[in-house]
Amino acid sequence: MLEVVASIANLRERLLPMRRAGKSIGLVPTMGALHAGHRRLIERARQQNSAVVVSIFVNPLQFDRNEDLARYPRPLDDDLTCCRELHVDFVFTPSAAEMYPHEQLAIVDVPQLSEHLCGAHRPGHFRGVATVVMKLFQIVQPERAYFGEKDAQQLAIIQRMVEDLNLPLTIVPVATVREPDGLALSSRNRHLNEEQRQLAAILPTALQAARARIQSGERSAHVIQTAVAPLFDRHPGLRLEYFSLVDPQTLAPVSYIDRPVLIAAALWIGSTRLIDNLTVSPIENGQPPLSSPRTSTATEAPPAKLRSP
Amino acid sequence: MLEVVASIANLRERLLPMRRAGKSIGLVPTMGALHAGHRRLIERARQQNSAVVVSIFVNPLQFDRNEDLARYPRPLDDDLTCCRELHVDFVFTPSAAEMYPHEQLAIVDVPQLSEHLCGAHRPGHFRGVATVVMKLFQIVQPERAYFGEKDAQQLAIIQRMVEDLNLPLTIVPVATVREPDGLALSSRNRHLNEEQRQLAAILPTALQAARARIQSGERSAHVIQTAVAPLFDRHPGLRLEYFSLVDPQTLAPVSYIDRPVLIAAALWIGSTRLIDNLTVSPIENGQPPLSSPRTSTATEAPPAKLRSP
Repeated sequence: MLEVVASIANLRERLLPMRRAGKSIGLVPTMGALHAGHRRLIERARQQNSAVVVSIFVNPLQFDRNEDLARYPRPLDDDLTCCRELHVDFVFTPSAAEMYPHEQLAIVDVPQLSEHLCGAHRPGHFRGVATVVMKLFQIVQPERAYFGEKDAQQLAIIQRMVEDLNLPLTIVPVATVREPDGLALSSRNRHLNEEQRQLAAILPTALQAARARIQSGERSAHVIQTAVAPLFDRHPGLRLEYFSLVDPQTLAPVSYIDRPVLIAAALWIGSTRLIDNLTVSPIENGQPPLSSPRTSTATEAPPAKLRSP
Repeated sequence: MLEVVASIANLRERLLPMRRAGKSIGLVPTMGALHAGHRRLIERARQQNSAVVVSIFVNPLQFDRNEDLARYPRPLDDDLTCCRELHVDFVFTPSAAEMYPHEQLAIVDVPQLSEHLCGAHRPGHFRGVATVVMKLFQIVQPERAYFGEKDAQQLAIIQRMVEDLNLPLTIVPVATVREPDGLALSSRNRHLNEEQRQLAAILPTALQAARARIQSGERSAHVIQTAVAPLFDRHPGLRLEYFSLVDPQTLAPVSYIDRPVLIAAALWIGSTRLIDNLTVSPIENGQPPLSSPRTSTATEAPPAKLRSP
């Protein structure tokens, strides 16, 4: 039986006897506008825990543009229906005043993982994410928390936060859910018109093209970036923010691909920003690389520079 | 029966059944070299909780000078004797490698409370304090944690961290313990030679002089600072780092004293740095102030400027 709780004190009061009884609590932090990707997170939480808490909070601290915050979708009734179907126990729907009763002076940050990829284009975003996730963890005190792999940088930052700050919980990453044409599910997809929705498939297509090149033996990040770039020049409504090959843990740019690499991209379609990523392991079976190795390691490599294939 | 535990996993394993049983856990975080001030913290924890954990960890993250870290006293046997006498249940003595198994990338910070007082002279210090205290809180998961009022800025920062990040515990402040001549107890006092130890009493004397002036009706922070400054000029071995009147919560400088004020000071005696503080309320019973009020409020006042009494 779903309970909707808006107050921190009430939620804690409801969860305390469960924790005392040794029952495991799974938390799925969301900003609402739940789609099949969220459903996958909730289903996983349902399988692994005695009680499931879904938080729905559009966190002002992580938005760098007020317009984006204002137009972020908030279909609460649909979200509650979804949570009921999936046998969620508690939906936590705090107001901004409940979460931030006065100026938030204490912050959590993982600066070195926040400077690359999306962080380079959204200053303060991941500090806002880490801070609100820390608050949710302290309020709910879950045994497990569920995050989608679509937000790869967020996932890496939260995992590092949990590890470095000794938080007593496990982060469970959940695979990205995709449309038939490969587009990753996102609450922002609903902002796309029909033509933009068609165009959006270019993002997973480019990621798959990059993966195919690595699996064919290409080792130069720059060669791969140069090869996929023209895909995004086909339409004036597309603007590529970044298409990067980075170390999956440190998120530092990789130039020579000799170990698993995260390929991550952000693409503007009109005024909507979409992100996506894949993790790829280079093939190890003696296939000769198309580019020669560099002396620097993947984790310490400088950003990819121009180099002939 | 005291248990000494050096591993995070072992400590958690020992504490889990207590927490499950609803027993309260009190944490006294220390850097060891326990003195009567720490004893007061431990005694308070012993009164209020079923189990008491004292952590002893000289946290490298909060030292800005390697010399200070290297010469910080580490009399572990004496500390354990003290903890046994006070019926502590667990002493947690992790190594630096146990607390920081790899580079600490995730940090906790309260920047606006860290820029004044000691923070202005010890860059990164309070970030190191907030981060290690967060780690200890997550490892021990106490119901209450005990901090001395001698470290007023640290206390304000930890209290704000707990509040802003919704940590499920209570911070208990404990009054400063003083020698007969007024010197606040500190692990650093043992670095003072006999002459320096005599000189050190100037610090509480100056704080008390400032308090007396406020209680006599003086309202100008600058007048008070000007009046006490000569006390520190009497000996070449003394160097005053700061003598500040600030808001007790925001730690922002106060120029006109019309509400409770924290008087805080840091004094170098040779190569030893001592800090101390007092909180003072101005007398409200119609006594006319010696200085005229300013329009700015205590919390928003600019640093004290020169003004005639």
